Amino acid sequence: MKVLIIGAAGMIGRKLTERIARDGCIGTMQIESVLLHDIVTPEVPSSKAISFQTRTSDLGAAGEAHHLLKERPDLIFHLAAVLSGEAESDFEKGYRVNIDNTRALFEAIRVVGDGYQPRVVFSSTIAVFGKPFPSTIDDDFLSAPLTSYGTAKAMAELMLSDYSRRGFLDGIGIRLPTICVRPGKPNKAASGFYSNIIREPLNGEEAILPVPESIRHWFASPRSAISFLLQAASLDTAQLGDRRNLSMPGLSCTVGEQIAALKKVAGESVAARIRREPDEATLRIIQGWPENFNTPRAHALGFTAESSFEQIVRIHIEDELHGKIQ
Amino acid sequence: MKVLIIGAAGMIGRKLTERIARDGCIGTMQIESVLLHDIVTPEVPSSKAISFQTRTSDLGAAGEAHHLLKERPDLIFHLAAVLSGEAESDFEKGYRVNIDNTRALFEAIRVVGDGYQPRVVFSSTIAVFGKPFPSTIDDDFLSAPLTSYGTAKAMAELMLSDYSRRGFLDGIGIRLPTICVRPGKPNKAASGFYSNIIREPLNGEEAILPVPESIRHWFASPRSAISFLLQAASLDTAQLGDRRNLSMPGLSCTVGEQIAALKKVAGESVAARIRREPDEATLRIIQGWPENFNTPRAHALGFTAESSFEQIVRIHIEDELHGKIQ
Repeated sequence: MKVLIIGAAGMIGRKLTERIARDGCIGTMQIESVLLHDIVTPEVPSSKAISFQTRTSDLGAAGEAHHLLKERPDLIFHLAAVLSGEAESDFEKGYRVNIDNTRALFEAIRVVGDGYQPRVVFSSTIAVFGKPFPSTIDDDFLSAPLTSYGTAKAMAELMLSDYSRRGFLDGIGIRLPTICVRPGKPNKAASGFYSNIIREPLNGEEAILPVPESIRHWFASPRSAISFLLQAASLDTAQLGDRRNLSMPGLSCTVGEQIAALKKVAGESVAARIRREPDEATLRIIQGWPENFNTPRAHALGFTAESSFEQIVRIHIEDELHGKIQ
Repeated sequence: MKVLIIGAAGMIGRKLTERIARDGCIGTMQIESVLLHDIVTPEVPSSKAISFQTRTSDLGAAGEAHHLLKERPDLIFHLAAVLSGEAESDFEKGYRVNIDNTRALFEAIRVVGDGYQPRVVFSSTIAVFGKPFPSTIDDDFLSAPLTSYGTAKAMAELMLSDYSRRGFLDGIGIRLPTICVRPGKPNKAASGFYSNIIREPLNGEEAILPVPESIRHWFASPRSAISFLLQAASLDTAQLGDRRNLSMPGLSCTVGEQIAALKKVAGESVAARIRREPDEATLRIIQGWPENFNTPRAHALGFTAESSFEQIVRIHIEDELHGKIQ
């Protein structure tokens, strides 16, 4: 089986690539080759079983989507996106990358014809939902995003379902919870603190908490995110009917519960590295975000996530810190 | 106030134009000029108070949307669309007209800048909803369309909300029920019979009923549709928050109730002109359509529709038949 990963240089793309290189297969499907695409050159993992190629280009450039399909990949992960903050500050770029490039990819697939109908796994987001919403968001709740990022993702979801219904491709969109603990450096995204307050203390550094401990949000580990993508790649999409987009399972917990889990796993002294510094601007933004989901469709299909924040902390320590806490 | 009507040659566009010509105002707003746009030349009503102009062109042609804004209309009705059947049979045309042209219009408005922020009234549709749905669809039910037409309208709704949220325009999308009784000739649309079985008998002609009398659907009269548009043009959009799209009120009734109303208004002999000729293909299509809605948001804003099918029959007789039954 041939695989194409678009957005391979991003955090999720890199982890997905590593996992595929390690496993050599997805479910029962043997992987023969993987083309890694991004706007910056993706890293190639070492692998004997799989041939990895890279291509560095703008997916939206003329003919580029078509070129990426040259080998007729059986499976395409479309992970590339301009994220929330940038899509809000650069409106034109957000629409171009998040809508036009996605459509260019779907169109390039459609015009191949000849029965070509690859599985397309699309990474969507809980940002397709916007306030007001109930404390728990159900599978049939409307997409009414409050960002241009969420708008573009919701539009792409609609196209994914329509192109699938018409038989042009075999799509599945998965709405990822907030990924926690994000590896890497602290960033200034409004959501950054959810990971910072775990990652930095475990790393011997101070982290700033800008919101009250009562704030509740929806999480899954990076490991779960990769599992979702792989399961989406191999499941029988006939089970989806015409609704090709699914809210993924996750864990609803408060900041206080995050901190309690950190204490339990790493001790009081590590959790003491969190400094409270309330920030009204951050609070205002994150109060507009979902707190909890009910995801019976994903559960019925076998998708699962962590059931406690302790697990999420332990996964971070295993996967990013070689089991060691500073 | 300057008005632009895009899609002015269609059934709704013509009725809206006539109504504006007759009233000379919308709510408390005096109308100074109206530009009627369509791909075929729209009819110009006689009016002393209002200057009517027409422009016949493809909204999607380069620079065309920009040209339509030359006079900086304060109010824009965007009614132009490729309808359900054609958008399904000609995929490319459907996406081009229903998505690309709508975006071209929104973009042309955005790039004017200088605080230009016209009211944009967008005609959407209950085709943004697809099965499975509950027997009554609420205001927060997801858009999961089962046609390319519904997909494009749902995508346009998302853009309308996003462009409004960002202050580029002041949009309101209204999801029209199935318009009944449609004036004109019988057509072959799957929904055609809902109007045919009333219009044709009242006109002394036979009509074919292809489905059982138990089938339930969601209706409003053409007169209500025009009222919805006019009210959307003049209401205070601050009341909408960031959800700019609204399911309109309507009447849920069965085919049996339609026929009973026709009998009551026009007598047994008129209703006897309906011939039962079951058609499985039609039945399959219309069984995928909504049966009933609960529209508290629209009601709270003062939108109202007919409360009995008898009213709908009487409106047709008044507005289309000068009060006379054949």
